[in-house]
Amino acid sequence: MGKTVRLGIAGLGTVGCGLVELLTANAERMTLGSGCKFAISGVSARDKSKDRGIALGADVIWHSDPVALATAPETDVFVELIGGSEGAAREAVTAALKAGKPVVTANKALLADHGVELAGFAEEAGVALAFEAAVAGGIPVIKAMRESLIGNSITRVYGILNGTCNYILTRMQEEGLAFEDVLKDAQALGYAEADPTFDVGGFDTAHKLSLLTSLAFGSEGATFEQIHVEGIERITPADIEAADDLGYRIKLLGVSMKTDSGIEQRVHPAMVAKGSAIAQVSGVTNGVAIDGDFVGDILLVGPGAGGGATASAVAADIAEVARGAVFAPFVTPAAKLAPYKRAQLRKHQGAYYLRLSVYDKPGAMAAIATRMGEQNVSLESIVQRRSKAGLPGSDGLPEPGELASVILITHKTNEQAIRDALAAIEADGKIADKPQVIRIEEL
Amino acid sequence: MGKTVRLGIAGLGTVGCGLVELLTANAERMTLGSGCKFAISGVSARDKSKDRGIALGADVIWHSDPVALATAPETDVFVELIGGSEGAAREAVTAALKAGKPVVTANKALLADHGVELAGFAEEAGVALAFEAAVAGGIPVIKAMRESLIGNSITRVYGILNGTCNYILTRMQEEGLAFEDVLKDAQALGYAEADPTFDVGGFDTAHKLSLLTSLAFGSEGATFEQIHVEGIERITPADIEAADDLGYRIKLLGVSMKTDSGIEQRVHPAMVAKGSAIAQVSGVTNGVAIDGDFVGDILLVGPGAGGGATASAVAADIAEVARGAVFAPFVTPAAKLAPYKRAQLRKHQGAYYLRLSVYDKPGAMAAIATRMGEQNVSLESIVQRRSKAGLPGSDGLPEPGELASVILITHKTNEQAIRDALAAIEADGKIADKPQVIRIEEL
Repeated sequence: MGKTVRLGIAGLGTVGCGLVELLTANAERMTLGSGCKFAISGVSARDKSKDRGIALGADVIWHSDPVALATAPETDVFVELIGGSEGAAREAVTAALKAGKPVVTANKALLADHGVELAGFAEEAGVALAFEAAVAGGIPVIKAMRESLIGNSITRVYGILNGTCNYILTRMQEEGLAFEDVLKDAQALGYAEADPTFDVGGFDTAHKLSLLTSLAFGSEGATFEQIHVEGIERITPADIEAADDLGYRIKLLGVSMKTDSGIEQRVHPAMVAKGSAIAQVSGVTNGVAIDGDFVGDILLVGPGAGGGATASAVAADIAEVARGAVFAPFVTPAAKLAPYKRAQLRKHQGAYYLRLSVYDKPGAMAAIATRMGEQNVSLESIVQRRSKAGLPGSDGLPEPGELASVILITHKTNEQAIRDALAAIEADGKIADKPQVIRIEEL
Repeated sequence: MGKTVRLGIAGLGTVGCGLVELLTANAERMTLGSGCKFAISGVSARDKSKDRGIALGADVIWHSDPVALATAPETDVFVELIGGSEGAAREAVTAALKAGKPVVTANKALLADHGVELAGFAEEAGVALAFEAAVAGGIPVIKAMRESLIGNSITRVYGILNGTCNYILTRMQEEGLAFEDVLKDAQALGYAEADPTFDVGGFDTAHKLSLLTSLAFGSEGATFEQIHVEGIERITPADIEAADDLGYRIKLLGVSMKTDSGIEQRVHPAMVAKGSAIAQVSGVTNGVAIDGDFVGDILLVGPGAGGGATASAVAADIAEVARGAVFAPFVTPAAKLAPYKRAQLRKHQGAYYLRLSVYDKPGAMAAIATRMGEQNVSLESIVQRRSKAGLPGSDGLPEPGELASVILITHKTNEQAIRDALAAIEADGKIADKPQVIRIEEL
């Protein structure tokens, strides 16, 4: 229990400060788990004079350049908490690995964009590149996939990977509010950025999903263009309410699965059965499900962000690196990762929720049902809701409204059939707006 | 990637056979994750001639004595899947560790009863004693606590650790059935033993909880006598229904938490909020929650038993041992585990569900409310249900019944106050039967 491992920490934001606190508060446990003591030998951050409310020893060396910190002789392990896929973070991590120093990082963008290259550097140098904190914050999903489920062929990994989206959908669900209203609130509370596109558009989820995919299926990372990405912007209170009536919750899922035609990676709002555990993952909490051929289905739930939770994941990696663990960052060595082969989403098999604004005229429903039937899409349920104009008139009978909201739940079919049926219905002139299409995820 | 690790597998039941299949089916992944190849060098099982549907190589050595297998020169890692806390399992594991061979076991009873002693043997020999499969089957909870959450002080660990109980409670909930009826069904389906006491009485949960407690709090194991253990036998459809009305589900929980007076370990049916993720852990599935000071709350859900899931956990341990990992089995070295100090349950802080059979006479409710008030127990809700005899009579008014079912939900109080209040109510002669008391777990 003698060896002291000296840490160079780049970035003293919420996570960096959380880590400094953790290393003091739980020093004994960190030592029990690793056989090592830990010292912070150096840090780098933009503003040295800023009061961060943490106590750094007088002997801690401040670097203005993270690359200098990464390669400093007194840095045994480089901890990158700067963020961003280019610039300082990429340069410093590269420099550390090339200097033969293990790296612990929480940087999902860096890993998603340059993970294969960096993994190659780590493997060449024979050191670890650990990134538990890069996906789903405090949830130990990377270690679960890299170690705990190593006896399994993974068939699917999916989850709620973005706290901002889940917070917005949860409040829409619980309070019946519109997307725009909750988004404003989330921005005011600091749960959403001023420009929320990266979160609510599904791109942050896609970044994390891409890392899980490489781990699960031994493939190189995918770009946003290679992943089907839909955000939550088009989800309405009507969808949330209909989902509830039909026994579902709407969650933004990232889903990755192996299919005959390649890897199906998709990020989109999905219906999940209300009585499932993942449906109860609410607010900013994340949940990741992994299906393996021997283990069956595992679900890991916990905080996906925040200084303490992320610091907890970083600390676990630090302890592991200190124990001397060396591993291929994506399980499969970087040079052997298969080129990413994208599955055709139109071959996706599943059930669908469809919400159509139908011109309320005789024969409209028959025409829609016919078009579905032509594509062999069978319907599990049809709900036509009264539009406002369709409330009972003075004679007590419903008045024909201009538009009726029709909600269809299909049996299992494929994406191409749904697209073709909807295209035909649109061409028939039976519906007023773009149909709402939400995939139902089979759990 | 050259080294071949030779496994000696004792016990070829469901888990052993699952492991043999896994090692073939996912050999490549096991090698990627460990850098090693695996071979089965020897096995032991009672009946060599039995057809188990697995293919063992001709060079696999059969041992009739597990101890001989454990210490055989060609056994690099001993895998104990015999079960039971005494006899062959204990002798073979002890012999392997004393011979300096790492051990992987799925044996919760052995670990619960002799874990500290065996951990001491492992530490003396400088080899691993790994037991991921001993708690919650395929859920990677041991590794989560030993590694992923090592930067945290654990404040509480709790969970649904017994699939039989959860199956019974789930069916009682979903179908409104009585305990006895579901138990019979579960026995017919093989989910419950002919003598179900160990499962439904909470003792299996207590075994697993004791292991989690040692990991979380660095204390020696506890005996059944040192853990408050209640089973699910007294749960009635009336309780399940009332829980549902009040927004709860009833689950058999094992809960371990650090308190000022020691470690509070309790196994009992508990009310958990219906909208929580753990409430949705249904059927034979297990769920384990861990609260840490930095990470916050983590919940891990998955299959708690079964050949494939348990083999998955065993395989993860085998890969870890093959990588050369050595660790104190309970994080804290065996010699430094603190003697177990039991907290006084009467000091337990929490809210309570109480169901009383009250003699339906004027003044009864007032007397009950008074006794609660005397103990400073404040009531969150009171529901008095019509007993059968209290259905409307021919005059349309309710007839006074002989007994009324009164359900009380208290605000947060302590166990002693509840006990004193109920003792006084019983002494007053206001209630007919032993009151039903179910603790509400704060999530």
